Amino acid sequence: MDIDKHSNFSEWFSTVLKEAKLVDLRYNVKGFIVILPWAFKTMKLMYSFAEAELEKRNHAPVNFPVVIPESNLIKEEEHVKGFGGEVFWITHAGFNRLEERLALRPTSETAMYPLYALWIKGKSDLPIKMYQSGAVWRYETKATRPFIRGREFLWIETHDAFATKNEALSQVMEDIEILNVFLWDILGIPFIVLRRPQWDKFPGADDTYAADTLMPDGKVLQIATTHMLGQRFSKPFNIKFMDEDGREKFVWQTCFGIGMNRIYAALVAWHGDNKGLIYPFSLSPIQVVIVPIFKENNKEKVLNYARGVYKKLKSKGFRVLLDESEKTPGFKFNEWEFKGVPIRMEIGEKEINNEGVLIVPRDTGIRSFASLNELVDKVSKEGKEMMKRLKEKNWKEFEKSLKSASTFEELKKKLENGGIVRVPFCSLSHGIECYNKIKEELKAEVRGEKVGEGKPKGLKCVVCGKEANHFVYVARQY
Amino acid sequence: MDIDKHSNFSEWFSTVLKEAKLVDLRYNVKGFIVILPWAFKTMKLMYSFAEAELEKRNHAPVNFPVVIPESNLIKEEEHVKGFGGEVFWITHAGFNRLEERLALRPTSETAMYPLYALWIKGKSDLPIKMYQSGAVWRYETKATRPFIRGREFLWIETHDAFATKNEALSQVMEDIEILNVFLWDILGIPFIVLRRPQWDKFPGADDTYAADTLMPDGKVLQIATTHMLGQRFSKPFNIKFMDEDGREKFVWQTCFGIGMNRIYAALVAWHGDNKGLIYPFSLSPIQVVIVPIFKENNKEKVLNYARGVYKKLKSKGFRVLLDESEKTPGFKFNEWEFKGVPIRMEIGEKEINNEGVLIVPRDTGIRSFASLNELVDKVSKEGKEMMKRLKEKNWKEFEKSLKSASTFEELKKKLENGGIVRVPFCSLSHGIECYNKIKEELKAEVRGEKVGEGKPKGLKCVVCGKEANHFVYVARQY
Repeated sequence: MDIDKHSNFSEWFSTVLKEAKLVDLRYNVKGFIVILPWAFKTMKLMYSFAEAELEKRNHAPVNFPVVIPESNLIKEEEHVKGFGGEVFWITHAGFNRLEERLALRPTSETAMYPLYALWIKGKSDLPIKMYQSGAVWRYETKATRPFIRGREFLWIETHDAFATKNEALSQVMEDIEILNVFLWDILGIPFIVLRRPQWDKFPGADDTYAADTLMPDGKVLQIATTHMLGQRFSKPFNIKFMDEDGREKFVWQTCFGIGMNRIYAALVAWHGDNKGLIYPFSLSPIQVVIVPIFKENNKEKVLNYARGVYKKLKSKGFRVLLDESEKTPGFKFNEWEFKGVPIRMEIGEKEINNEGVLIVPRDTGIRSFASLNELVDKVSKEGKEMMKRLKEKNWKEFEKSLKSASTFEELKKKLENGGIVRVPFCSLSHGIECYNKIKEELKAEVRGEKVGEGKPKGLKCVVCGKEANHFVYVARQY
Repeated sequence: MDIDKHSNFSEWFSTVLKEAKLVDLRYNVKGFIVILPWAFKTMKLMYSFAEAELEKRNHAPVNFPVVIPESNLIKEEEHVKGFGGEVFWITHAGFNRLEERLALRPTSETAMYPLYALWIKGKSDLPIKMYQSGAVWRYETKATRPFIRGREFLWIETHDAFATKNEALSQVMEDIEILNVFLWDILGIPFIVLRRPQWDKFPGADDTYAADTLMPDGKVLQIATTHMLGQRFSKPFNIKFMDEDGREKFVWQTCFGIGMNRIYAALVAWHGDNKGLIYPFSLSPIQVVIVPIFKENNKEKVLNYARGVYKKLKSKGFRVLLDESEKTPGFKFNEWEFKGVPIRMEIGEKEINNEGVLIVPRDTGIRSFASLNELVDKVSKEGKEMMKRLKEKNWKEFEKSLKSASTFEELKKKLENGGIVRVPFCSLSHGIECYNKIKEELKAEVRGEKVGEGKPKGLKCVVCGKEANHFVYVARQY
């Protein structure tokens, strides 16, 4: 296709989504999309990786209803202020009007916590660590964009309850560790975790920590959030336990949202190139595509040999396709390249004579020979090495986009080419005026401070010039 | 607990659901349940087995929105007649009234087929075979019962489109084959597939084939259905292709619903016994529970040894738990027995001295010794043998419940003890009056005829005495 993803991301992304058959945008409800098999198979793999990491850390899967009675939803004041305007309401069933309106869940706190109040009695009932995979619905008023902003999106949400504040804070750190493994180790998506300003946190949380990644156009995209809820929900929902000192105490809670639609968008955006999609080896619906190259006189010979290679790889558990369709090899190369299959194998007369195959990784396109004996090892190795290269490239690009500035003018200049700019800032609790100035004059956002980063010493806020209490990260956002 | 599941199924089922923590019924919307981890983990395994069978047969996963515009839903006349009274309606979003009401999908035909019309142009676009896993919502007016009848339930639905009628009919047979593998080979649930009477088919189908299983109280439960839709949807939804003869033709369609909530209920009901739940080895969240038996003076020795056994099994991919809690061994035996863990291992001083463990399968409770060397093989073998025993027992019981009768009086008598009774019947197209008589006088249903079973010769309908064209199966239903 030859569209540059950095200089023309919007067109690149739309073209890949459409031509690689990732999504169909013609569903006749605004903001709702149809996720097609070539995307959804990879999303299912993403789900299984993420769920495995959660289960390793003792989260259990649970399935709550998608409808929430209005009376639940309004119990926590900030929460309903934040979500009330975004809810789809069910008012009728069959030919009857319902006595109470039901919200299509925008998030599940108010569905789950009434039950937590029933489940938790003593300290031995704690901690509770549960996760739920599925969709949520929010009536977005901003312009929607496939996978990036929609009215229905897929995610995982965890809901944890603890006896002490410290355990809850540790859980937030564990959630960040899960993101390191899932987003970076497994998916190869660079990101930064920031504690959001107080005026930009989850409705009903003490603190919100969010994972921001960068898209190729230099704007940040929030792809996951973990919230220290403190006791803000346990009090209105009356989630108490009898502590060992004989006193009833409210539990401390956290919740964690892993936005699968947006993470999928980031996966596509980070790994792809001018030739289309690139799927990491462990996440591709097809890991190896075999393209047989033959003439009329050696067709059966080549196909038989290719079928043998197919069977060998299949028996080792690889997801492999032998493309026996009528198209020309060149057409097949382009098609599978565009769809991002990580490894292509070419098999012709010459490969058969040499008792091997040609292996072509999607990212470099460099052909190399592998003998039949070493085939299985070579495929695993190429898959891993390709992922290593993709991650190195992504990390370099991400690092290059992390800048810093010490004055408002410098911030303005550095933001011109996108990316994330670190600046000294007065306060994440009270600095909303400085935040608004950055928003209005630079069309950018203060995304928050990095967890564990030291405080600036003797530096001034780039906006108001008062003493800086944080290094914050500023960027334009989706 | 010692409740007999046959003579007192209702109490048995409620007790198991509650005490094994499979479900919480206290969610404050009628007909909606919370599926707890001990059930949901097994349901997730069920999903992965069923999806694997579908994918082996070239079905691709897809994700359509859960909302369907009213104008889509009413396109096929029979369909909206059947589902119109059962739909949850979304009428508002945020503070706005929607221009068009949105149905929370009761099933996805009318969500998917407008897109099928866009995707299918030529013969090379066919067949399309897609599946979707997730929930659907129906405003049931009958009494709800956990997993058996709810207003929200989990299922898999496939939607296939073909160029010819024969291909569609073959797909129905393939769907039945998938049920044989999934329900019987993998889950060990006996069932019978019946072509439903014309007046009892899916709204919008030419023919409905349904899998009925028996519950311990002798009533049948429909757990899956596959429908020959013919061209009933392709015409109103305008799903056409240009055939090789240059003529535009409507596609032939099938759809197939695998009801995961009900199948889970059947799994619990078929395998369980007077001591509680029994999970098959391949489907249990924990396959092996290790119970260490020690006194104060050998605690560390026993625990260390047990941890070694745990690690060995874990490294081989088994789902295993070492129960190190403070409870007594007897308490642990009862607890894990009730929760249906297929294999218990007991480890005490004696087992350590003999360099082995005691293995106790859940169904027989018979202890046998296994040395450390043979441990892994023994666990696999015990798991398989236990499933074989469960299936044999279930099959015997199912066969015993299949009866036949040749007069109305005989039918009445045989139905008294529950089960499924085969009788000659006049017509599945025109015999609705005979059907109604059975329904009214015997409180039972004509469930349909068995696929591939011959026609009765020279026999009379047990109701009207006219010539019988089918052997039909009659039972009381859920």
